[in-house]
Amino acid sequence: MMVSCVKEFFTYQTNKSVVVKSWTIGIINRVVQLLIIAYFIGWVFMHEKAYQTRDTAIESSVMTKVKGFGMYNNHVMDVADYVTPTQGASMFCLITKIIKTENQVQGSCPEFISSKERKYKCTNDSQCEEGKQASTGVLTGKCVDFSEKDKSCQVKGWCPAENDHVVIPPMMEVENFTIFIKNSIRFPLFDFTKGNFLPNISKDHIGKCNFDPVLDKFCPIFKVGDVLRFAHQDFPNLAAKGGVIGIKIGWVCDLDRSEDECIPSYSFTRLDAMSQSNNVSTGYNFRFAKYYKMENGTEYRTLLKAYAIRFDVLVYGNAGKFNMIPTLINMVAAFTSVGVGTVLCDIILLNFLKGADQYKAKKFEEVTEAEVVRSTSLVDGMYRTREHSQLSIRLDEKQSSDSGAFPLVRYD
Amino acid sequence: MMVSCVKEFFTYQTNKSVVVKSWTIGIINRVVQLLIIAYFIGWVFMHEKAYQTRDTAIESSVMTKVKGFGMYNNHVMDVADYVTPTQGASMFCLITKIIKTENQVQGSCPEFISSKERKYKCTNDSQCEEGKQASTGVLTGKCVDFSEKDKSCQVKGWCPAENDHVVIPPMMEVENFTIFIKNSIRFPLFDFTKGNFLPNISKDHIGKCNFDPVLDKFCPIFKVGDVLRFAHQDFPNLAAKGGVIGIKIGWVCDLDRSEDECIPSYSFTRLDAMSQSNNVSTGYNFRFAKYYKMENGTEYRTLLKAYAIRFDVLVYGNAGKFNMIPTLINMVAAFTSVGVGTVLCDIILLNFLKGADQYKAKKFEEVTEAEVVRSTSLVDGMYRTREHSQLSIRLDEKQSSDSGAFPLVRYD
Amino acid sequence: MMVSCVKEFFTYQTNKSVVVKSWTIGIINRVVQLLIIAYFIGWVFMHEKAYQTRDTAIESSVMTKVKGFGMYNNHVMDVADYVTPTQGASMFCLITKIIKTENQVQGSCPEFISSKERKYKCTNDSQCEEGKQASTGVLTGKCVDFSEKDKSCQVKGWCPAENDHVVIPPMMEVENFTIFIKNSIRFPLFDFTKGNFLPNISKDHIGKCNFDPVLDKFCPIFKVGDVLRFAHQDFPNLAAKGGVIGIKIGWVCDLDRSEDECIPSYSFTRLDAMSQSNNVSTGYNFRFAKYYKMENGTEYRTLLKAYAIRFDVLVYGNAGKFNMIPTLINMVAAFTSVGVGTVLCDIILLNFLKGADQYKAKKFEEVTEAEVVRSTSLVDGMYRTREHSQLSIRLDEKQSSDSGAFPLVRYD
Repeated sequence: MMVSCVKEFFTYQTNKSVVVKSWTIGIINRVVQLLIIAYFIGWVFMHEKAYQTRDTAIESSVMTKVKGFGMYNNHVMDVADYVTPTQGASMFCLITKIIKTENQVQGSCPEFISSKERKYKCTNDSQCEEGKQASTGVLTGKCVDFSEKDKSCQVKGWCPAENDHVVIPPMMEVENFTIFIKNSIRFPLFDFTKGNFLPNISKDHIGKCNFDPVLDKFCPIFKVGDVLRFAHQDFPNLAAKGGVIGIKIGWVCDLDRSEDECIPSYSFTRLDAMSQSNNVSTGYNFRFAKYYKMENGTEYRTLLKAYAIRFDVLVYGNAGKFNMIPTLINMVAAFTSVGVGTVLCDIILLNFLKGADQYKAKKFEEVTEAEVVRSTSLVDGMYRTREHSQLSIRLDEKQSSDSGAFPLVRYD
Repeated sequence: MMVSCVKEFFTYQTNKSVVVKSWTIGIINRVVQLLIIAYFIGWVFMHEKAYQTRDTAIESSVMTKVKGFGMYNNHVMDVADYVTPTQGASMFCLITKIIKTENQVQGSCPEFISSKERKYKCTNDSQCEEGKQASTGVLTGKCVDFSEKDKSCQVKGWCPAENDHVVIPPMMEVENFTIFIKNSIRFPLFDFTKGNFLPNISKDHIGKCNFDPVLDKFCPIFKVGDVLRFAHQDFPNLAAKGGVIGIKIGWVCDLDRSEDECIPSYSFTRLDAMSQSNNVSTGYNFRFAKYYKMENGTEYRTLLKAYAIRFDVLVYGNAGKFNMIPTLINMVAAFTSVGVGTVLCDIILLNFLKGADQYKAKKFEEVTEAEVVRSTSLVDGMYRTREHSQLSIRLDEKQSSDSGAFPLVRYD
Repeated sequence: MMVSCVKEFFTYQTNKSVVVKSWTIGIINRVVQLLIIAYFIGWVFMHEKAYQTRDTAIESSVMTKVKGFGMYNNHVMDVADYVTPTQGASMFCLITKIIKTENQVQGSCPEFISSKERKYKCTNDSQCEEGKQASTGVLTGKCVDFSEKDKSCQVKGWCPAENDHVVIPPMMEVENFTIFIKNSIRFPLFDFTKGNFLPNISKDHIGKCNFDPVLDKFCPIFKVGDVLRFAHQDFPNLAAKGGVIGIKIGWVCDLDRSEDECIPSYSFTRLDAMSQSNNVSTGYNFRFAKYYKMENGTEYRTLLKAYAIRFDVLVYGNAGKFNMIPTLINMVAAFTSVGVGTVLCDIILLNFLKGADQYKAKKFEEVTEAEVVRSTSLVDGMYRTREHSQLSIRLDEKQSSDSGAFPLVRYD
């Protein structure tokens, strides 16, 4: 009994097949199989590189350094003046325009009004609600002289109040500033490290080159004007209003090839592009202050409203390397997928080919509930042997030729 | 020979099938197939949108601007005073409480001690190990007078030493400050750009609206108090201790639909939530200094210990658009998966249905090693024709009815 | 007619199978199936945890605090002096070396020259092109006295010009500074929040512990010297030149297990590793300035060139939890994949096994175009019954034994 059970277990079961020797369907079959194989070899293996494991958790460090001098308000501005934050990280702003309000101290003063900004103009105290937050401070509830002819609400806060309605030109030299980007990446899965200073570039060349997408596409020094042009932006406009530019560094590496072919590709885009198409709050600016102290200990400050071009260096990438496991899995998938072609071929064979009925008859064998029940009752009460029951079925054997009428759910 | 080989190649092979005409198994079969089709149409195609290519590499730029005035130590604090870093990037801190230590110069002074902080209280020099790093400087090894009755170890460093054990109230006006967020995103794969100022919102509305998850869910201006409430936080507690709040902007877009339906969704969460449930080092604070110079060139500074609410604006999202390749692949997968139903149906048919033995007999044809070997030896030495060998098998043909006993690994 | 159609629809179709009772192929078959099942259970289910839904959108907040005092230029440096940015976010720099240029004012002065830096040495005005951007300002076109024996081009800008060719030692105490990291994470899908202060660590312990990968792997306080050693870096070299160190915190959590098993793992790496292997622009440094004002309102500044070790705290992770949908899908995949073994077994059975021809004969039934066409013409013009057409095929029935010659594309 035990032996029989073990014997029963170690059997192999394979599908019974019908081999159709027909040129028409034979050619269709092979063409479909060829397409499937081509898809796997061409797309899955060659294009998608399914034989590789992929590391997408790129580790990256970016250091940036800006060079250049600009003239602004008769001052020579250097890096420490116009770059912020100063750490040389992947995000930095180049200040292109500054509205300065010097020597502010805590106190009370009239809100700023001009022909453009008339919100806090007043004629008597009742127009100035005490405690209300105005543009540059908190209203005291008084209406005071702003100029010889105008009165405005008095505010408590840093005085004098800021006038940011002045029209001043941006620092045009920014266009010629250069951005030096040092980017080092690592794929932790393969412990592969590389930097954007390729070994075939000499130290001398790096010192004086300028990035160009055609002529010098691995130079790590970028002229601001060039970057804006590559991102299809107009310098004077951007310098006046401010904006955010993305410098993207892509590392897509096939580590089965030579290390030298793992190279960075640079691309440029305006990140706040939405600003342009929308009139609401265009550009990019922010306020900060420099604090000073008088001899008597009183703090005073210079308030700066800075318009800036912000640069975001974005690093992305992935690397692949041959690995047995995905190769095997995808090869098995490819082999088994070849059989998917039968779905299409069966539809053609059993519906559109000459002699379809004959093919159906060959493919399908029919067994009905009625027959089974009848044969079961025949042997009822008898000692049921395997042979008996099978004989009885045989008598009723009939082959179906009208199957395949619902091909969608039938051929698999 | 060549022709025969080619003829042999262009054949088509399809599985021989048994069609069971039984209401029971027929209905089960169709129901299972229906479920599989429903899964593919409902989940894979409708819900997961498997017919689309998906761009998950969202490019984003965030600009923030805070507005509001607070009163602190009889000073009106404005944006330049309480926002840091000042650049208006995606991460910024609103300082809610400041402990100031003014006019520090390099020198020697007693370590600060109080009823709470008694670590550096001493009675003689031996208690102050020279060179040891204390709270506010390096010990000089001397024990000096701190107050009339207490002595403490002397430190070398910025003097006077900081006393951060004072209890001062936070700046309560922060609750009413507003955060303005300008977010522009781009899906590079589809070159699709959009911003969080939707076209149907007028400039006027943006100027004075306040975000509300129900009434005004596209307004880009957020009241600090609201944000904290949406994140289930308590303002007075957070202002006193500091914390980190995440403002998440989600962009999940179906670009097959109208562009107007690609809209941002805002959500709010406390990012350092762990702090609350743990007594160790709760809250968020940091130290920085403002540096001044005396007339004689000596540098002095104001040390500030700032408690702040840090806001992190996190942008995530993906976009999908119809594409032929994933559609085809998933349709093929759907068609072939319908056949998976036979695994279940075979188990039912061959084990639980009335007449299971008869069905087994129809489905399985048996061939044993013994027969094969016998038939092979019969024709041994003879000119082996195909007909002969087949005839000999036929004689022994027997149909199995006890197969299917191990359904798990057998029906495929 | 309607009834017949419905009856026709509710049929079940299953493949006719050949059961081979052979020890050889039976054992091969079961072994292959076992391997496939082992792959699914061991790799897909146990290792890849395919029964879980996975949340990869980890939300994280990092707060850092550095402690320690350093001696530099007879000054005691504290956190407010050497940490930048000051906010205690996930990225911060520890300044290890500073080159100070004090009391700079806007004006004109000779470019700095030394034995190393001779670029702007001149003998007459013609060597100094007016308007050209030099190292520390814009050339005025004049050649002026730099020292008693040397002349150099005059620059307009912040004066005196910076001399960054001095050799000064770094602040060696940085090695003993400690970095305290507070990290709170959240998996939004499961609303699971955790921090890196594990509940089994007491407040006392956190106050005085030091991270060690073996002895104290959950202590959130890291000695700078240790971190560099774990990243295989040399402190004196890094302090002198600067560099970028990554502190990675990994959270890979199985939320089906106890919450206590969701623990952080720390790892350390040098992010700008490329710098080391390349002579071009090694290290990490940046310039910033402190601004002061004279009594008469003239601004002056101290320019600082800071060499720093930058630390980037990178948090990554994912969490999985049991879910019915992926479990079902993968179980179905596993069941159906077991059948893939027949591809291999068929190749062996039909080509390499003793009696392969007999097995082929059993597996394949042949039908040729010629027969089909003949049988079709026989019944032409007659009332075609199913029985007739089938009978006619039967007469020509012949079983193929030479199929399977192209196993790659045939067995599925």
